[in-house]
Amino acid sequence: MVVLGATGTIGQRFVSLLQDHPIFEIVALCSSERKVGGHLGEFWRLEDVPLDPDVAGMEIESLDVKRLVRAGIVAAFSALPSDVAVELEVDAARAGIKVFSNASAHRMEADVPLLVPEVNPDHVALVERQRSFAGGGFLVANPNCSITGLVLALRPLADIFEIGSVHVATYQALSGAGYPGVSSLDITANVMPFIEGEEEKMRREAKKILGAWSDGIVPSAIDVWANCARVPVRDGHLEAVSIPLAQDVSSQDVARILSSFRGEPQRRKLPTAPEWPVIVRTEEDRPQPLRDLRAGEPARARGMAATVGRIRVADRVLRFFVLSHNTLRGGAGGSVLNAEMAHRRGYFD
Amino acid sequence: MVVLGATGTIGQRFVSLLQDHPIFEIVALCSSERKVGGHLGEFWRLEDVPLDPDVAGMEIESLDVKRLVRAGIVAAFSALPSDVAVELEVDAARAGIKVFSNASAHRMEADVPLLVPEVNPDHVALVERQRSFAGGGFLVANPNCSITGLVLALRPLADIFEIGSVHVATYQALSGAGYPGVSSLDITANVMPFIEGEEEKMRREAKKILGAWSDGIVPSAIDVWANCARVPVRDGHLEAVSIPLAQDVSSQDVARILSSFRGEPQRRKLPTAPEWPVIVRTEEDRPQPLRDLRAGEPARARGMAATVGRIRVADRVLRFFVLSHNTLRGGAGGSVLNAEMAHRRGYFD
Amino acid sequence: MVVLGATGTIGQRFVSLLQDHPIFEIVALCSSERKVGGHLGEFWRLEDVPLDPDVAGMEIESLDVKRLVRAGIVAAFSALPSDVAVELEVDAARAGIKVFSNASAHRMEADVPLLVPEVNPDHVALVERQRSFAGGGFLVANPNCSITGLVLALRPLADIFEIGSVHVATYQALSGAGYPGVSSLDITANVMPFIEGEEEKMRREAKKILGAWSDGIVPSAIDVWANCARVPVRDGHLEAVSIPLAQDVSSQDVARILSSFRGEPQRRKLPTAPEWPVIVRTEEDRPQPLRDLRAGEPARARGMAATVGRIRVADRVLRFFVLSHNTLRGGAGGSVLNAEMAHRRGYFD
Amino acid sequence: MVVLGATGTIGQRFVSLLQDHPIFEIVALCSSERKVGGHLGEFWRLEDVPLDPDVAGMEIESLDVKRLVRAGIVAAFSALPSDVAVELEVDAARAGIKVFSNASAHRMEADVPLLVPEVNPDHVALVERQRSFAGGGFLVANPNCSITGLVLALRPLADIFEIGSVHVATYQALSGAGYPGVSSLDITANVMPFIEGEEEKMRREAKKILGAWSDGIVPSAIDVWANCARVPVRDGHLEAVSIPLAQDVSSQDVARILSSFRGEPQRRKLPTAPEWPVIVRTEEDRPQPLRDLRAGEPARARGMAATVGRIRVADRVLRFFVLSHNTLRGGAGGSVLNAEMAHRRGYFD
Repeated sequence: MVVLGATGTIGQRFVSLLQDHPIFEIVALCSSERKVGGHLGEFWRLEDVPLDPDVAGMEIESLDVKRLVRAGIVAAFSALPSDVAVELEVDAARAGIKVFSNASAHRMEADVPLLVPEVNPDHVALVERQRSFAGGGFLVANPNCSITGLVLALRPLADIFEIGSVHVATYQALSGAGYPGVSSLDITANVMPFIEGEEEKMRREAKKILGAWSDGIVPSAIDVWANCARVPVRDGHLEAVSIPLAQDVSSQDVARILSSFRGEPQRRKLPTAPEWPVIVRTEEDRPQPLRDLRAGEPARARGMAATVGRIRVADRVLRFFVLSHNTLRGGAGGSVLNAEMAHRRGYFD
Repeated sequence: MVVLGATGTIGQRFVSLLQDHPIFEIVALCSSERKVGGHLGEFWRLEDVPLDPDVAGMEIESLDVKRLVRAGIVAAFSALPSDVAVELEVDAARAGIKVFSNASAHRMEADVPLLVPEVNPDHVALVERQRSFAGGGFLVANPNCSITGLVLALRPLADIFEIGSVHVATYQALSGAGYPGVSSLDITANVMPFIEGEEEKMRREAKKILGAWSDGIVPSAIDVWANCARVPVRDGHLEAVSIPLAQDVSSQDVARILSSFRGEPQRRKLPTAPEWPVIVRTEEDRPQPLRDLRAGEPARARGMAATVGRIRVADRVLRFFVLSHNTLRGGAGGSVLNAEMAHRRGYFD
Repeated sequence: MVVLGATGTIGQRFVSLLQDHPIFEIVALCSSERKVGGHLGEFWRLEDVPLDPDVAGMEIESLDVKRLVRAGIVAAFSALPSDVAVELEVDAARAGIKVFSNASAHRMEADVPLLVPEVNPDHVALVERQRSFAGGGFLVANPNCSITGLVLALRPLADIFEIGSVHVATYQALSGAGYPGVSSLDITANVMPFIEGEEEKMRREAKKILGAWSDGIVPSAIDVWANCARVPVRDGHLEAVSIPLAQDVSSQDVARILSSFRGEPQRRKLPTAPEWPVIVRTEEDRPQPLRDLRAGEPARARGMAATVGRIRVADRVLRFFVLSHNTLRGGAGGSVLNAEMAHRRGYFD
Repeated sequence: MVVLGATGTIGQRFVSLLQDHPIFEIVALCSSERKVGGHLGEFWRLEDVPLDPDVAGMEIESLDVKRLVRAGIVAAFSALPSDVAVELEVDAARAGIKVFSNASAHRMEADVPLLVPEVNPDHVALVERQRSFAGGGFLVANPNCSITGLVLALRPLADIFEIGSVHVATYQALSGAGYPGVSSLDITANVMPFIEGEEEKMRREAKKILGAWSDGIVPSAIDVWANCARVPVRDGHLEAVSIPLAQDVSSQDVARILSSFRGEPQRRKLPTAPEWPVIVRTEEDRPQPLRDLRAGEPARARGMAATVGRIRVADRVLRFFVLSHNTLRGGAGGSVLNAEMAHRRGYFD
């Protein structure tokens, strides 16, 4: 495995998940030119994860697809910025590399699965339509950090209830903007009610992820109407959700549906899959970023479960809060889980 | 004028607005027993407002209605906690005092106007139905801090468009919880997705404020579905709003309707009325608490205008953010404006 | 083992360290009356530590020394508030219980060791002078959270250099004030330049801890002149230190002395002892609370090492920053290490 | 007057002070090329100061000294970055412009006054030694933001007591690093114990400012030993000070000396001079950035006074905290006061 864009916020999360992974092994770390030759340890900023000394000492290499192929690398995790990813990920796939990408560059392409394995596992078959597939290479994307937690909650609800509009407001963490990202003068004791492109991504990515499969993806009828804002929180995207329903339902029903939801990663016991992908809290003041950020069991799956709380239903309007870790479940962890599922389904054979 | 509950967060805002007011004069400051005998200056925590030295030296008196009456006080601003307000405000009104209250205790009573002068000025006539009115005393309430900015934006929209549901998520400031209020350990680098009773208040108060007048208030059909959260911001409640509409409308239309809205306080040029009660910002990242908190001109009306920004309409769903100052427009300033309107309409004669 | 004051900030840290401890076992949790009957899980606020489900289910008991003795409890960790500790800890010791206390109540008593095992291990012998010792009970205190990290750095320096005055300014974390502790309105985007009694504690406790042993403690000549302030940081006390020296010395010498320092806990390989009690960082911007809070290896000793950085010497003035975890090394972890050393020295036999 | 570097944090403060100044008038605003042609209003970020609409509409011009001279501009305020200031300020002075600079580029040059008018007013005469003086141009610098408040307190103390070493630790605000400045990921709920070059600047600038005048500046013997750190505060540098004294003195004496201190700006009643340059607070928890930031009367001088609090003396060690506004007194306000004094002393004639 190679991590492309290894020194950034998401790249470091990839490393944190892979440094002791039971299936995948890090053999190379690549980044942009001015970091080449440095060692990962110099760039490490994840204060909550100790970095393996061997990995800390790995040298950062340049983003050279040919060299990676020559080195026998068969798969890559990409945390590249979109403008770099747009070409390089395609080059890598064509060179036979299986690419699991957090970049937004190719998410909406018709033959690229936008995968959340609990939600739309069968979409992974789209890779077989990619031109590069014959040569062993393909591209799988994970969605935007702000939609991942939400679709985990919407999937089991939409399977049972008719859902049209989903009104959501986000309380997004600083790490979502990368480093250096948001200026402290813009956000200290303030809220920034704007995140470039985020609301549109939430709407169109939800339509694809929740879309049905019928020899291709039929976009979901669900409209996610988002108001996105950044708050002075380090990690964890919290979202306030309000959904008109077409039928009577109790908050207990909703809680039961969400807390009993399990998908293919759970059935297959994938290494990074949380036992329960949606955890329902009944306390009156949860989920909170600080306290629920690392939801998910077992230890390897910490930060991979979404937490839902404050479920209320009144006059056929369902409201709740949902939280997920934006750089784990909503970023690097999402792609690692995608790779584990692709591996289990035989795409690495 | 007396300020009841003068040492708390809202009480201090009352003082800040009244210390150089052209109509009203502070003649007494009252608070709970353990503060009696102290001077206001000892309790002052409004870092953004210099306190007049004469007012700083005023002694805090006990909450004794009879003494106030004997002292010839005819009107009061109340920043009392609800459990104290529930009886004391009624006693004061019955003793002939005109009470303008920020407390929630009596807001939903049928003969108490829940007044936002730009929105429902005629509701003030409800005071004439109060038993105490014959003796010159009455009670007028201002609404919850989190609904005031929103109804300023909804009033002109609802006058033109058919609005059923309003989905709103709040980013509420620390000062809304009073002092000491929220523990720093609960909110530093965190979001608290729960504020006791707030969501219900928003729904029921909006129905009353936006209700039509027909020999009494006919509750509005508008349902405000709120998800309320506290964020680490000192002052200013920001709200993300999403409204399904029954017709096509452009964001330009919405901006025009909001920015041209004026009400009775503007027509009557009340001292604390902002020239424009709703200010529309066209920058992509406004309103922000830090920058738009003190919207409103002239100087006396700073913090009395709501700021709306990021107006978007897509597929008949209108979205925007609205910000208002929770202890000025949404608290003390609201009641001062109520008193100014009551005064101009002759209720002090 | 019983934890006294188990539901507070320090009490919870005691539990976090003891829930899988190789020597000590939690058999009871006690707290003030209004929490009795609840379960620890309801009070848990340590977002960085998962609570063992068995411990979470333990019922909170009242602070009844006789019952503890009847239950066969031989040792206690005390996180009691000082006003409760002042009598209860003495009662417990007299009843034969070995008390390891974080409370300030008895720290300055002549026969109570104020113990930091790397710094003044021999002071533990003071317990033998306590009246209760004959009956198996005694009292050992750990010092104030703001002095612990500093004395770890001062001990090896003072062993080599003549040190008179130590000028220190603190950047103290919110958790040091307990819960609810500091109001968010006092500290959000602010600094509070005052912590009740803290500066005096630092001076007098340093004199005792660094004091020589000569049939009793001879107070150290070192004067710690502190300016204490609270900053909006969740955990970790950072301190800026400036020390006039009587001789020439290089910053390299200081780094070498600090980074090679080891004490009795290291030699005895106590379970909670960090391999190196003082870690020296050479980066230009360390130590930082967020990144160095959990310094210390192995895993059980995370948060038990102090981190020193930015060592500079100019004109015989030594300056550096030191950071330590205020509720681990500077609180519960300190007392756990004290108990481990007392145990190894045979005081539990 | 022209403001050089008008769009940055300090540049905007210059504008805020000059937009209604009784002596000086803004006639041009200059900035780096990529901002040329824009209007100041687009760049405004000072949430606490309303910008005059006329000034908001002024067009940003390029940094072209010849054009400024042709336009008849005789004086400039410089908020340029040091690498630009190093040549451009000299060019401007040689072209006959009186330059009042906040840049560090020329502060330590022998013939450039490093001026704090209350502290070293006579140093202004150094301008007469500058080569450009004959042509009417000269250069006056204000000191680093972190030393200004401190020297205001040291001046009257050093006039009476013998002071050798001053140990100081800083709690510096975000605005000191400009915009975008500090990444929110580095400082949210954290402290950064490093500010490039700051400690050295404090030491050498204090020696120059406090130096005696004897046909040139004789550097002061006072050594300022600083530990500098950034905290998550928006504006206002707080400093913890510890000073060994050679004699006995009471804290009351120190308070009296500081609070009665007045200098030439006060005697000459300069427009931006605070009535009292050092304000002494006696509350136990002051000064605080949020509450004391804008100390200084009259209104025009808000933010121009330093606030000292928590004065303690024990065993001939004096400790206190001092706060000053880093972009007003410690930046733009300092240079405006310098210009007012130069003007009153006849250097504009």
